[in-house]
Amino acid sequence: MKIWLTTMAATLSLNLAANELKLDNNLAYQLTESLTVEVGQRLAGSEADARAVAWAEQKFQQLGYDKVWTEPFSMQYWQRGQASLTVSAPFQQNLVVTALGGSIATPFDGISAQVAPFDSLEQLKQAEPAQVKDKIVFINKSMGKDKLGSFYGSVVGARAQGAVEAAKLGAKAIIIRSVGTSINRFAHTGIMRYSDDVERIPAAAISVPDAMQLEKMLARQPELTLHLQMQNKLPGEVVSHNVIAEITGSKYPDEIVLISAHLDSWDEGTGALDDGAGVGIVMATAALLKQQGRPERTVRVVLFGNEEGGLVGARAYAAKHAANLKNHVFASESDFGAGRIWRLDTGFGDKALSFGNTLQQKLAHLGIAMGDNTASGGPDVSILKAQGVPVVSLQQDGTDYFDYHHTPNDTLDKIDPEAMQQNLAAWLITTAAVANSRVDLRR
Amino acid sequence: MKIWLTTMAATLSLNLAANELKLDNNLAYQLTESLTVEVGQRLAGSEADARAVAWAEQKFQQLGYDKVWTEPFSMQYWQRGQASLTVSAPFQQNLVVTALGGSIATPFDGISAQVAPFDSLEQLKQAEPAQVKDKIVFINKSMGKDKLGSFYGSVVGARAQGAVEAAKLGAKAIIIRSVGTSINRFAHTGIMRYSDDVERIPAAAISVPDAMQLEKMLARQPELTLHLQMQNKLPGEVVSHNVIAEITGSKYPDEIVLISAHLDSWDEGTGALDDGAGVGIVMATAALLKQQGRPERTVRVVLFGNEEGGLVGARAYAAKHAANLKNHVFASESDFGAGRIWRLDTGFGDKALSFGNTLQQKLAHLGIAMGDNTASGGPDVSILKAQGVPVVSLQQDGTDYFDYHHTPNDTLDKIDPEAMQQNLAAWLITTAAVANSRVDLRR
Repeated sequence: MKIWLTTMAATLSLNLAANELKLDNNLAYQLTESLTVEVGQRLAGSEADARAVAWAEQKFQQLGYDKVWTEPFSMQYWQRGQASLTVSAPFQQNLVVTALGGSIATPFDGISAQVAPFDSLEQLKQAEPAQVKDKIVFINKSMGKDKLGSFYGSVVGARAQGAVEAAKLGAKAIIIRSVGTSINRFAHTGIMRYSDDVERIPAAAISVPDAMQLEKMLARQPELTLHLQMQNKLPGEVVSHNVIAEITGSKYPDEIVLISAHLDSWDEGTGALDDGAGVGIVMATAALLKQQGRPERTVRVVLFGNEEGGLVGARAYAAKHAANLKNHVFASESDFGAGRIWRLDTGFGDKALSFGNTLQQKLAHLGIAMGDNTASGGPDVSILKAQGVPVVSLQQDGTDYFDYHHTPNDTLDKIDPEAMQQNLAAWLITTAAVANSRVDLRR
Repeated sequence: MKIWLTTMAATLSLNLAANELKLDNNLAYQLTESLTVEVGQRLAGSEADARAVAWAEQKFQQLGYDKVWTEPFSMQYWQRGQASLTVSAPFQQNLVVTALGGSIATPFDGISAQVAPFDSLEQLKQAEPAQVKDKIVFINKSMGKDKLGSFYGSVVGARAQGAVEAAKLGAKAIIIRSVGTSINRFAHTGIMRYSDDVERIPAAAISVPDAMQLEKMLARQPELTLHLQMQNKLPGEVVSHNVIAEITGSKYPDEIVLISAHLDSWDEGTGALDDGAGVGIVMATAALLKQQGRPERTVRVVLFGNEEGGLVGARAYAAKHAANLKNHVFASESDFGAGRIWRLDTGFGDKALSFGNTLQQKLAHLGIAMGDNTASGGPDVSILKAQGVPVVSLQQDGTDYFDYHHTPNDTLDKIDPEAMQQNLAAWLITTAAVANSRVDLRR
């Protein structure tokens, strides 16, 4: 497992103000530790988000980046409030609940209603209003596990669209089984959506054990009543920032190799896996690359703001840089934890596929196989891909990612530093290969 | 693994009011499910505790026990309140915290203080007052894992005695790293003690990830300030109950074979492993035994109240039955989850050890080995052992027990029904062997 260490920069200590960072194989972990310990959660738009932006600017400077700047964007700020969900007699109990991101509050005294249970969003869509009217909808769909997190897509619809579909049928509120793969008793948050022409109703998630518990209660007593209280706030429009830094290319400074992650996180964990790890990986990548000798093309690191609210920073970036996207020769994002990279997927023009194969050969000693040419590049980078920017997805092992994702349990201790070193090595090799080549990946 | 099924009663359905119980291998699980779903948490002294007592009386009746009764005892009622622990600038964050059982509240505005960190209770005991005075003590001792849970004893002292030791040195409050073995972000509660001659200070636990986080923060900024708020209440003396039921012996009704568990639980989980599982196992054992033919000696099932507050129900039982303890020929308690039984420990007189060996031979096909003769019998039953009652400990695999114990994560889904069937089989064989013999285990 040490074979790839030779591709890394020599260890070099930097004496930094707050604490010391070493430019070594562990730099991605060190940065993730620094962000999660010194800033912690950084909900987009919050005071902590502003501290994270300041942290990123400072760290980029300390790591020797040539240029560091921020780009403001406007966003709707949403704040989580206290939430409670209680089951009435005869099974009086509290369930573990959290608001979905963007949800309105309940009235101060809460909402009491019987339950309309469904196995899935699809089943809800087929329901009659009489089944749902004046009830709290409960979508109880479980999620499977694999390396790619591929079960997420089929479950997350209930989170995103459930409130609109339930409200169309007259529901008072919606609760969903957490979109997650562990039986730990954490509720899983994440963004939900309203529609302008449908009444807004409160939306929340209960933990997987509580969903199992509620299912058993309903089997005994279908008429039981739930009482939901949530005190979320929607303070309105605020400004957040993308943080951007560059290592200027030695030969082709106008050609931009963009690597990225998102700086914001949900507010209940410390955002270690989502996406402190990605922040650490891409910040470390370009810093270590410069130590190996300045790349020929410019390597730009973008830490997007407010990914969680719906790729808000990425859309702002794409709009601001629209005229210059043709100079973006490559883009990729790390936003799936800190596990080992096991597959290279590309999103290249057909004539550039041979470069993908060459790249995979450079990665093969890390145990990385060739995937297909349908990579999105990552959530934020998918916006750039839609504008024609070539991308790769360095697929990391996310088997356990949804055990922790979007819960209070997303903390630094869930990261395996050794796996993260392999991950960083793959980013270094990939970024160096693109930044030191003349390949046109669009062709 | 099905070999022991032949020792079980034939399946017999009972139509019960609320839902159906089947007198089969799964009866222990069914009962635990019923208790955790229909009652849930049952903090000693609470309204939920009273519902649990009513539940137990009803289930004993439905299961065909010959006698069912309750025995009241007085206890001090403690109620958990909201708790919060925040770290001040520059690392402003909330840590996951919960009150230790019995802790006083903080003043309404909370306590702000610097931190005096220690590796262990022993290190705190050796500290100078100048290190501790006006600070919040933080004991950061981690806990190992094994089948027996044997690391608990060396860690739990900080929880039980930490507040007294910290207060002696002038501390304002104490927080401890959770006494638990998982990195899930749950704080672990449990009883703590005050001393009449030492000032009472608030005591709380933070989750393992938060302890690791605080350690990293203190390494960067030893002078950081914590702000602790807790709103616990001590309403005073209330009455709770032990619930007792018997299958009357056919030949020796005055000779009591006592099997037991505790009915109360901490208030944040649903008390599935601690000790809903034990309740299910012992209630099922005597019910199934009666189906196999009435035992010769009386089998008494005791569901002790307020074990968590310090074996309060067990002490009341021992006091009330003091004159009759000589007729208690045997006692044992199930209070370590629902894992597979792997060892038989006895607490017999020397001349009865051959019976222990005979018993182990009956259990060997379940994979149960012979242990030693130093069994406690279980927390509550240790009070009876101290009065000379012979005991066994059917040691169950508790490797994961302290991953869930005393946290919100102690829920039904953590129980493996198949392991629980093996556990129940061992209880059936053991109880039948003692109840249908003339052995004097005191000798």
